[in-house]
Amino acid sequence: MAERELVEYIRQLAAGERPPWLEVGIGDDAAVLRVPDDSRVVVTTDSVIESVHFKAGTEPELVGRKAVARCLSDIAAMAARPLCTVAAVGFGRSYDDDACRRLCKALYEAARELSAPLVGGDVASGPGPTTVTVTALGTAGSAGVVTRSGARPGDAICVTGRLGGSIRGRHLTFRPRIPEALALAGRCRLHAMIDISDGLSTDALHIAEESAVGVVLRAADIPVSDDAVVLSRATGRPPLWHALNDGEDYELLFCLGVADARELARSGVAGAAGERVGVSIIGEVVAGAASYLEAADGSREPLTAGGWEHLTR
Amino acid sequence: MAERELVEYIRQLAAGERPPWLEVGIGDDAAVLRVPDDSRVVVTTDSVIESVHFKAGTEPELVGRKAVARCLSDIAAMAARPLCTVAAVGFGRSYDDDACRRLCKALYEAARELSAPLVGGDVASGPGPTTVTVTALGTAGSAGVVTRSGARPGDAICVTGRLGGSIRGRHLTFRPRIPEALALAGRCRLHAMIDISDGLSTDALHIAEESAVGVVLRAADIPVSDDAVVLSRATGRPPLWHALNDGEDYELLFCLGVADARELARSGVAGAAGERVGVSIIGEVVAGAASYLEAADGSREPLTAGGWEHLTR
Repeated sequence: MAERELVEYIRQLAAGERPPWLEVGIGDDAAVLRVPDDSRVVVTTDSVIESVHFKAGTEPELVGRKAVARCLSDIAAMAARPLCTVAAVGFGRSYDDDACRRLCKALYEAARELSAPLVGGDVASGPGPTTVTVTALGTAGSAGVVTRSGARPGDAICVTGRLGGSIRGRHLTFRPRIPEALALAGRCRLHAMIDISDGLSTDALHIAEESAVGVVLRAADIPVSDDAVVLSRATGRPPLWHALNDGEDYELLFCLGVADARELARSGVAGAAGERVGVSIIGEVVAGAASYLEAADGSREPLTAGGWEHLTR
Repeated sequence: MAERELVEYIRQLAAGERPPWLEVGIGDDAAVLRVPDDSRVVVTTDSVIESVHFKAGTEPELVGRKAVARCLSDIAAMAARPLCTVAAVGFGRSYDDDACRRLCKALYEAARELSAPLVGGDVASGPGPTTVTVTALGTAGSAGVVTRSGARPGDAICVTGRLGGSIRGRHLTFRPRIPEALALAGRCRLHAMIDISDGLSTDALHIAEESAVGVVLRAADIPVSDDAVVLSRATGRPPLWHALNDGEDYELLFCLGVADARELARSGVAGAAGERVGVSIIGEVVAGAASYLEAADGSREPLTAGGWEHLTR
């Protein structure tokens, strides 16, 4: 298939759906958009690579969806509002014309569904694994973004949903916590937030390091997913280990005042379909550089980054 | 090397250099920037893949530079002003720690040099070839962008610089025509513009199709580079063939009124270092859907897209 044909295919998908802020869309050298005055532009980029982030043979629909969802999870982690996406795809040898089209369609549809329409991209074929890089733009008001670096001693540490075992399927099908993040930031003063991609232990330590504080996670309060329980039977590791270290949960991990946290833990937060998403208080922020995992009996061991490391070979 | 170490390395490069419009830079889930009110945001993404866009064994410095320059060439093609870049790198097996650092440093330095500071990114290692995807953001005033779709019958077709044979080295070392594009758009009313990445023939046909016009290129007026002449000795093809079809010239191809074009052809346009960059009038825009290559004796043959096709296998 010619590159032009594929670009034309994607363009046809978008025909008649141009958002009012989009002045130039797919098919030119770049997309041109109008951003509301006074808003900040939030930008993040993320890749999924065959055999690293998805298995060879994974349906193109799931690959495209994951690539978009993973990137938009970073927009959610800033409590920003999705604006648009661009995607660069390097198709591997295993992708025939039909698979190329299916992947592009999935990118387009996932981006539209998640309120970040695809406005441009680049397609090429290469000798290696299929690689999809999505860059997302979002907007936020001046008070709107929540970074990793604002956690304060005394803060409660909270997480949405349940953790661990995402490799059983959720890592491909999850929905980024975009409305949840906006609702949380709208209801409370969030001090710091991150999405759990590398794993709870690693991502909690990211917040600790960026905020120059320590974190104490209470093992008994960490919400363990059913997937982690099932997976533990195969691995022989405790379900808690999977909740701490598996990663790719794409849940929100955030720090805020204790009273706000208690209120959220009682009420939960509304999800994309209006469903109630649980919020768990799993620990607290402490002064100093040391971070711990605390057992039910109050004993503590140092919290270590057990999650995914992308450059470890 | 740990992912964190590499991110920290890049962050150190940027320390103390935060542009005033950058509110959150490298190290969080996303970068946050302020864009001037009333300006359009221009966004484009582009990948370079080992064994496709650069040979295995190419110095990481050249790979990083090409990835940034190629993407910014698309910002130039819109006559937009570079704002910032983000990069996603999938390091292949051949990249050791030192090569990873060198590539990241090259991305950082090329982006800074080209006035589009690197504000975020993603690093991973994979089983395949090294792939670098750069997304660039630019800004433009409401009247500022130049698309591919505004060419009108009667327009002159112009090109900067000289074409062909970029594979001999220029495809790695070129400087995107950013100041030239801004100067051209400031001096004249440009009707359509594209950067020559796929090849003059293919990219001229892109303008023709998007503008719903035909183009006539005059063979004798196409500026052929010395590289094309040297390369033709090895390939046995005429230098003109290389100028028409090699691609990766990253020169600007644009359409505008004849009087403006003549003035530009006389004066040239100022380059990044104040040097004079030549502008050649190479043809004209005609009504209808047919495009031609015209020989010196006035005979015409259909212009065919002979350039690079990224999805042809």
